Amino acid sequence: MDCSATAKPMIDAGDMLAETRERFCIPEGVRYFDGNSLGLMPKVVQLHASNVITHEWGTGLIHSWHDAEWRTLPQRTGAKIAALIGAEPQQVVACDSTSVNLFKVLVSAVRLRAGRQKIVTDSDAFPTDLYIVGQVARLFGLTVVGVPAREINDNLDEDVAAVVLTHVDYRSAEIYDMQAYTQRAHEAGALIVWDLSHTAGAVPCDLDGSGADFAVGCGYKYLNGGPGAPAYLYVAERHADACEQPLAGWFGHARPFDFAPDYKPASGTVRFLCGTNPVIGLSVLSRALDIFEGVCLSDLRSRSIRLTALFIDSVDKHLSSHGFAVASPRDATRRGSHVSLRHQHGYGVMQELAKRKFIGDFRMPDYMRFGFAPLYNNDEDVHALIDAIDQIMISRDWEKPEYQQRRDFT
Amino acid sequence: MDCSATAKPMIDAGDMLAETRERFCIPEGVRYFDGNSLGLMPKVVQLHASNVITHEWGTGLIHSWHDAEWRTLPQRTGAKIAALIGAEPQQVVACDSTSVNLFKVLVSAVRLRAGRQKIVTDSDAFPTDLYIVGQVARLFGLTVVGVPAREINDNLDEDVAAVVLTHVDYRSAEIYDMQAYTQRAHEAGALIVWDLSHTAGAVPCDLDGSGADFAVGCGYKYLNGGPGAPAYLYVAERHADACEQPLAGWFGHARPFDFAPDYKPASGTVRFLCGTNPVIGLSVLSRALDIFEGVCLSDLRSRSIRLTALFIDSVDKHLSSHGFAVASPRDATRRGSHVSLRHQHGYGVMQELAKRKFIGDFRMPDYMRFGFAPLYNNDEDVHALIDAIDQIMISRDWEKPEYQQRRDFT
Repeated sequence: MDCSATAKPMIDAGDMLAETRERFCIPEGVRYFDGNSLGLMPKVVQLHASNVITHEWGTGLIHSWHDAEWRTLPQRTGAKIAALIGAEPQQVVACDSTSVNLFKVLVSAVRLRAGRQKIVTDSDAFPTDLYIVGQVARLFGLTVVGVPAREINDNLDEDVAAVVLTHVDYRSAEIYDMQAYTQRAHEAGALIVWDLSHTAGAVPCDLDGSGADFAVGCGYKYLNGGPGAPAYLYVAERHADACEQPLAGWFGHARPFDFAPDYKPASGTVRFLCGTNPVIGLSVLSRALDIFEGVCLSDLRSRSIRLTALFIDSVDKHLSSHGFAVASPRDATRRGSHVSLRHQHGYGVMQELAKRKFIGDFRMPDYMRFGFAPLYNNDEDVHALIDAIDQIMISRDWEKPEYQQRRDFT
Repeated sequence: MDCSATAKPMIDAGDMLAETRERFCIPEGVRYFDGNSLGLMPKVVQLHASNVITHEWGTGLIHSWHDAEWRTLPQRTGAKIAALIGAEPQQVVACDSTSVNLFKVLVSAVRLRAGRQKIVTDSDAFPTDLYIVGQVARLFGLTVVGVPAREINDNLDEDVAAVVLTHVDYRSAEIYDMQAYTQRAHEAGALIVWDLSHTAGAVPCDLDGSGADFAVGCGYKYLNGGPGAPAYLYVAERHADACEQPLAGWFGHARPFDFAPDYKPASGTVRFLCGTNPVIGLSVLSRALDIFEGVCLSDLRSRSIRLTALFIDSVDKHLSSHGFAVASPRDATRRGSHVSLRHQHGYGVMQELAKRKFIGDFRMPDYMRFGFAPLYNNDEDVHALIDAIDQIMISRDWEKPEYQQRRDFT
């Protein structure tokens, strides 16, 4: 939310964000640095979910499609997310998974650019995006040009239908300039699809302002929607009514309850809905998003930068002798809300941290990833983390089997 | 579950099913006949959901992917559903929505029958199925042959790639013979996809025994998984490893946590998973399915038949003078677990019933649909419903606006 749009007078940013920390359940003794994988549970969702299940479902039954407004949950939840990603509200719906939504918007994009033969994407993108890009290319007989993100702009020509790029890199946290990439794609006549999974809720962006075409993202990281929360998608209003998305289900129909045999898409982004939507999951996500109400996004960003900068400075100061390399940009303007360190014993270090209830995650081959969620992480978390890593590095036998056998996190 | 597979000695079917009724939350004063749209809430899911949210998410955080076995929820939930639809457990996964799953299996089917140019389907199918069939046809340049279900077998030839058919018709409740249609499709060299949305949990079927190729279905009707519960899909084991499904997400990868840039599908039905799965919704569905444990499917079917037969007999006896027409098969072997009546004032009658807390639903243009869920409906429900309709028909002014303006249910 833009500061100017906040109804109540802004209080000091630090105070406001100290207050939001209180709204999350932080298990005793835990230091949590994985909000970029699964956000902490907002306290309010416990009662809320209980209400949805017991009252809306248990008592209201099918009447709740109207009375509890289940029907419009994708739109209402989408509107809350829109405020976090620089979009007018009607352009975002919450539904399905990020991968499914990427499929929908990318097929729509290549149909809008029919005749062009290539999709260009970041070869280091989160793999599920690459898999979906591959399938779309296969369905339409297109070629995938996978190159490092910074080479994308050198690979654009009049044969590129779409560019697919993640705004904040899932490993390095590098931010790719939304305005610049979008503009360059458009100069080549291509459309661009942004993945905002590591952006929304921690790093402001401006979809409308940058002229982006499509975006997708997940609900379970910085949006705190819970494990496997519904994802979302954005379609620029100028495109929506020209889009034909392939997962044409009844919730995307102009009049779903006419049960008409012919598909007539709803106008706007609503046509990107498919089957019956996950009411419980959407309700939880929607309620979790209320925490952002009254939070100024530039304050959120300042706090995120302060935390990641403090961490990087402390690594330099206290951990460099242990051989850790900072794998995230040192330039704060190019860095998202997590920091990755690389270390040959990274997996083992994460194991030792977990024993001490410091929770981050590990990404192949040697990335130790620490998320700093500005709604709840604070300076003390950073200091404690640095101390813990320092302690762990002092006398560990890294050849022990427990440090070799990788355990999967997400 | 087959009776013989039940560990404890079978008690009288009536008793067992009287007991299952007690396991659902039935709101005071409500007579519920819409389990074919949204199943009643099993009492046990309240505490269960609270546990998933508070403990597994709130406290366990990302460790719950292992410790609470979130990773395998689609498979474990699918195995429980498999027992209800005549399938060996490893062939079913619970995930996404019915429409999304239909897209996945139908694309796989037409790829397995590449070169054939037609998809044959029931022109009266639930519209979302028709929309998806239409999109798959468009993607592959195929022709959709939409005919009434009973004409499908007359339209099969060597150019048909796939047949898509709903096992129990969503309006009439007519059951289409799984064995016969499957055999006929196979004789023509086509593959068959069954939609079991109105089957699973109320009407036994035998996917494996009939030689079916694919199936999909939803989790929120007779499976009682809650509003927008995850759906499921079945892929016959003999096909699974040859299938290339288009929504290739990381959860369908052979080794998702290798984060490999190339997609290598898991073996078996697991390759049909796409993005991160909705943990809360899957957990609720999975727990709700436990009610079927120890229930003999033939007893369930007997009870369903008794309820629908009692209703039809009572309509004939008490309501025929009011002009109601039974739009469901009178032959019990050809009838699913709901009964549709047609009446010119059907919409108004449903409105009046709702005021009296009798909940059924209405389907265009004039279908009054009453579901009899054998896990919780009983004879008394039927008698009360007949009395209520009879009362309503005595002195109503059907020209009043409130009876004209349709309110959407699902």
